[in-house]
Amino acid sequence: MKDGCFERIALIGVGLIGSSIALAARRAGLADRVVGSARTEATVEKALQLGIIDEGFSSAAEAARGSDLVVLCAPVGVCGAIAEQINAACAFRDGAILTDVGSVKAAIVADVGPHVPAGVHFVPGHPIAGTEQSGPEAGFAELFDNRWCILTPPESCDSTALGRLKSFWEGLGSRVQIMSPGHHDLVLAITSHVPHLIAFNIVNTAAHLERVTDQEVIKFSAGGFRDFTRIAASDPIMWRDVFLNNKEAVLEMLGRFSEDLTALQRAIRFSDGETLHRLFSEARTLRRGIIEAGQDTDAPDFGRRGGGALDAEADE
Amino acid sequence: MKDGCFERIALIGVGLIGSSIALAARRAGLADRVVGSARTEATVEKALQLGIIDEGFSSAAEAARGSDLVVLCAPVGVCGAIAEQINAACAFRDGAILTDVGSVKAAIVADVGPHVPAGVHFVPGHPIAGTEQSGPEAGFAELFDNRWCILTPPESCDSTALGRLKSFWEGLGSRVQIMSPGHHDLVLAITSHVPHLIAFNIVNTAAHLERVTDQEVIKFSAGGFRDFTRIAASDPIMWRDVFLNNKEAVLEMLGRFSEDLTALQRAIRFSDGETLHRLFSEARTLRRGIIEAGQDTDAPDFGRRGGGALDAEADE
Repeated sequence: MKDGCFERIALIGVGLIGSSIALAARRAGLADRVVGSARTEATVEKALQLGIIDEGFSSAAEAARGSDLVVLCAPVGVCGAIAEQINAACAFRDGAILTDVGSVKAAIVADVGPHVPAGVHFVPGHPIAGTEQSGPEAGFAELFDNRWCILTPPESCDSTALGRLKSFWEGLGSRVQIMSPGHHDLVLAITSHVPHLIAFNIVNTAAHLERVTDQEVIKFSAGGFRDFTRIAASDPIMWRDVFLNNKEAVLEMLGRFSEDLTALQRAIRFSDGETLHRLFSEARTLRRGIIEAGQDTDAPDFGRRGGGALDAEADE
Repeated sequence: MKDGCFERIALIGVGLIGSSIALAARRAGLADRVVGSARTEATVEKALQLGIIDEGFSSAAEAARGSDLVVLCAPVGVCGAIAEQINAACAFRDGAILTDVGSVKAAIVADVGPHVPAGVHFVPGHPIAGTEQSGPEAGFAELFDNRWCILTPPESCDSTALGRLKSFWEGLGSRVQIMSPGHHDLVLAITSHVPHLIAFNIVNTAAHLERVTDQEVIKFSAGGFRDFTRIAASDPIMWRDVFLNNKEAVLEMLGRFSEDLTALQRAIRFSDGETLHRLFSEARTLRRGIIEAGQDTDAPDFGRRGGGALDAEADE
């Protein structure tokens, strides 16, 4: 069998990420058969209708049964229970690889690990890709192209299984990085979790002002606020679970953020223009690194000349 | 003369906003002649080369002389001094309209007002549009299309002058809203100034972590952080001046933001999933309002399928 290919892939959850995996796997010819399950019958129906999965199940165990790759694409908070169900139904195939796409990793290891039987290779994963939209209709095959996928295999991990999963993600378009679950959680706390928390927060601060109306906030959002609302439109359940399951790292990064913000606030209060200018200038440097690394373009976005257009794919 | 048209428009500063005004005015045929000045000779040269202005000056006063519309397109902190120079050179034409594009308004009224001679109509303005880029080459004619421009005329403002400036901005593609300088500063503090401050801040927090490298931040920025760096790439001098000149409103909004963030932090610490879910869900509502108001699209942006593409204009 070709590197990174599987006979039967089971997607437990067919929302944005699950359906994008299905479409990208199909694009690359990585699966003989893609099956899926979802929490609601309507979602399974939708995924079947859209041709995302070949077969749909209401039970995760029935989707997993006979699959040589099982991908948990559900909110972090329910992954442990799903693994427990599959295991209780003796539905894990011997030699299968079990992975997930959750935004936290130490908690997943703790929750899912105990339900993985001997002979099944559990390799937690996290593709650093997504949009603020949810559901099977939000998925698209290009989501992972040129994005990083982090795998956090246990030390005892079977190297063949790890190699297969790595090839699978590369086949989906990703670049793969291996790290420990704890370090993953620290890195993502600053690159993803705290930014989302801040975005949710400022949107709610704006919504509860007495002296500025919601209509004014909406009308004049093009000044910068708009970009925060985009992030803040992300799935609330997914994000609740992220914060409940990466508490320590998020609180550490949040502490740093607040400390730094207090320094800026102080500089404003005392009209310390030199400090403000220095800190604002430094922020530009990191931005350049992101563009050079191909993780964004330097085309202007505030003007939204082409922002969100669906027909242009040449920017990355 | 056609509504909103001028014989000679002087742009004091031909960066992103100044050059976009020139290009949009040309597109709509709003000026017989567009002249400009800039702080450096190189910028004037560049603007002439690009065909943005018909004539360039190293002195603001010489650009303003004979113009029936003078637009201050310089950082907020220097607008007072520029008006003083023009006035000292007796270069304001009788009956001319003087306006600006600064992101704060009460400070502009205080700084510029004293240098406006009798017979010249001072109507401060602020187009809520921009990109994170700077300089004459960053300008484009469509920047103001369907964006709001806020005018903050004094109570004694000549209604003909106000009407002409309103028509001018509408000709550039904008919708115009009248409000008081103080209310403008409050609205913009939450829709623009505090979001930018937060973006600058988190980028710097990320850059100074010991346990996460800059390379890791850059590689895994697609998880949300990337969108903040885009905002944080904005011009440091412009933003320093904004914060120095809208201190009171920014500190008020920042206080609210920090209070709300502390509540979220507490919910995380005590694993209060219900509060997190409720607050995250509320944030979605405001986002929908922004899309419905035509100030953003609902096309997904995290995936950057078309983000930044220059050829698509159909999204708004």
